[in-house]
Amino acid sequence: MERRPAAAVNVGGVVIGGGQPIVIQSMTSSKTDEVGKTLAQVKRLAAAGCQLVRVAVPDRGAAKALDTLVGASPVPLIADIHFDHELALAALEAGVSKLRINPGTMSLKALNSVVARASRLGVPLRVGVNSGSIHRDYQHLPRVEALVKSALYYCQVIADLGWDELVVSLKSSSVTETYLATEQFAGQSLYPLHLGVTEAGTIGSSTIKSAIGIGGLLLRGIGDTLRVSVTGPPESEIPIALGILRALGLRRGIDIISCPTCGRSGYDVAAVAQEVEDRLGSLELPLKIAVMGCVVNGPGEAKSADFGIAFGPGGGALFKKGQVVAKMANDELLYALLQLIDEEARQRN
Amino acid sequence: MERRPAAAVNVGGVVIGGGQPIVIQSMTSSKTDEVGKTLAQVKRLAAAGCQLVRVAVPDRGAAKALDTLVGASPVPLIADIHFDHELALAALEAGVSKLRINPGTMSLKALNSVVARASRLGVPLRVGVNSGSIHRDYQHLPRVEALVKSALYYCQVIADLGWDELVVSLKSSSVTETYLATEQFAGQSLYPLHLGVTEAGTIGSSTIKSAIGIGGLLLRGIGDTLRVSVTGPPESEIPIALGILRALGLRRGIDIISCPTCGRSGYDVAAVAQEVEDRLGSLELPLKIAVMGCVVNGPGEAKSADFGIAFGPGGGALFKKGQVVAKMANDELLYALLQLIDEEARQRN
Repeated sequence: MERRPAAAVNVGGVVIGGGQPIVIQSMTSSKTDEVGKTLAQVKRLAAAGCQLVRVAVPDRGAAKALDTLVGASPVPLIADIHFDHELALAALEAGVSKLRINPGTMSLKALNSVVARASRLGVPLRVGVNSGSIHRDYQHLPRVEALVKSALYYCQVIADLGWDELVVSLKSSSVTETYLATEQFAGQSLYPLHLGVTEAGTIGSSTIKSAIGIGGLLLRGIGDTLRVSVTGPPESEIPIALGILRALGLRRGIDIISCPTCGRSGYDVAAVAQEVEDRLGSLELPLKIAVMGCVVNGPGEAKSADFGIAFGPGGGALFKKGQVVAKMANDELLYALLQLIDEEARQRN
Repeated sequence: MERRPAAAVNVGGVVIGGGQPIVIQSMTSSKTDEVGKTLAQVKRLAAAGCQLVRVAVPDRGAAKALDTLVGASPVPLIADIHFDHELALAALEAGVSKLRINPGTMSLKALNSVVARASRLGVPLRVGVNSGSIHRDYQHLPRVEALVKSALYYCQVIADLGWDELVVSLKSSSVTETYLATEQFAGQSLYPLHLGVTEAGTIGSSTIKSAIGIGGLLLRGIGDTLRVSVTGPPESEIPIALGILRALGLRRGIDIISCPTCGRSGYDVAAVAQEVEDRLGSLELPLKIAVMGCVVNGPGEAKSADFGIAFGPGGGALFKKGQVVAKMANDELLYALLQLIDEEARQRN
């Protein structure tokens, strides 16, 4: 699928859009003015693979904390502002790398002052429209149309004020609405897009909703940055985000393909696949590893894998780039596979 | 999104396609000839919400076991056949409700005899093409094109033999290939489609890959039956399948929307959302429940929910159909919400 062309927006050195790899972001859940706790959370997020971190700025205390946080954070910070444009101005002074505003919660005059300051400082904005804050002129419309028109309207207002370093999101707690609104907006604009499903729920629920909504758009070539939203610790969002990108070949990493253990298999494939995943999950080599339980799909699927093993009734086979490189007892396959990958990792380093 | 029109195929009373609700299926992992174990697994799958169960038929013993299994199963059974058309004929004699064949593993003569018998008995076939068994004439083509051409070719061969009660699947362990091949086939055929990503891996990995691949197609209106494939116990596939359908509003059930606990919230929203999910997860009422941590998105998002609670600094609010029906202390919100839903459930029963 060809990627939708989008303008490049530089967020403190991390580029969103412009054909760059898709950027993973998250948001702290600590109270922002508890600087120690917030900074610890930012560092945990960064260590997990989060490239941009957003912090809520609901009051003066939070805005003041930004002075310290911006200097100490290992990744660029984004300030999340609603209602109060004075807080947006304070965040800009503190040196944040991007502002997320929900223009539906501000007067045009307030928006004007924020845009003027951001433009002068060269700080990009995210225009975040969600179904809870549709522009009042569009509230009578069907939800998807209302989201698209609100987003287009606010982008135009800001562009008319002379600033177009914008990233745009259209979010709803309905996966289908989020998908349709984002797709429709994508066809009418060149601004880079931030993907996410709001209020996606607990880890299990969010994994499903986010994978469908975010993944469904990425499959159409749409999206430049993403956030998986989980009701829970923000660090838990990053493996899901990485999983979505890896599943689509958009991020390096081990991709383990393993078959359901059907009646054809005489071997505990699930346990072996889990062990491979546990041992190699954090490896950043872009390798496809096949763990197959039988000869029906085994050799065929293993052809597309870099390395693979297939268990068989009388013994199994070890594959490398679609070729059988050794036959051996089933019990020896896992060890042989791990050894092969270990050699590969050393050669590439 | 409008649903793709597809022919209706009756599988032992469960209709796939024809505008009917999307059917959930799975496959046993026991050895089919261990009848007691297999039947126990079929019953667990059915109890979890699986509507059709496939069993592997790799040998005579498995085919013989079908005589007993077909009579005792609470849901229609599908026989999974590769290579040996004699096993397909035996499965048809045993009274299975559908045959899954991979025509790429049979000679045309063998296929002919299977189709003739299925047609005479009125048993539908699934034509399951996967990247491990592309027709040899198409193996030089790019994978997606090869999958589509193989599927179209085998459907035509079977239709020419006089039988067109077909369900079709095009599967690859690549989510993107599965998506593109299925979408392209969908535009060129009216046969109902079976969705799934093969070798999707462990539960965590499969949840992501299946939600993207299956959910991405459902978002385009494509798909009539689905299987989430997990390397592990097949019962674990059903909650993921149900989660995908519920996330897209394609299956009744409680949909809990809850916000990430950002710095704006002063309350443990995650714990409350999890408790609501635990208490109401199995309820089949099609209700949307909002658990919101603050006033920014709370009231707006809660408008689209049937019931909702939003925590606030000085106390919270209870919503019903977008209207605040009561204000109370934050600690009282959960109990009040559960009581409201309980009343609703009793009224609807």
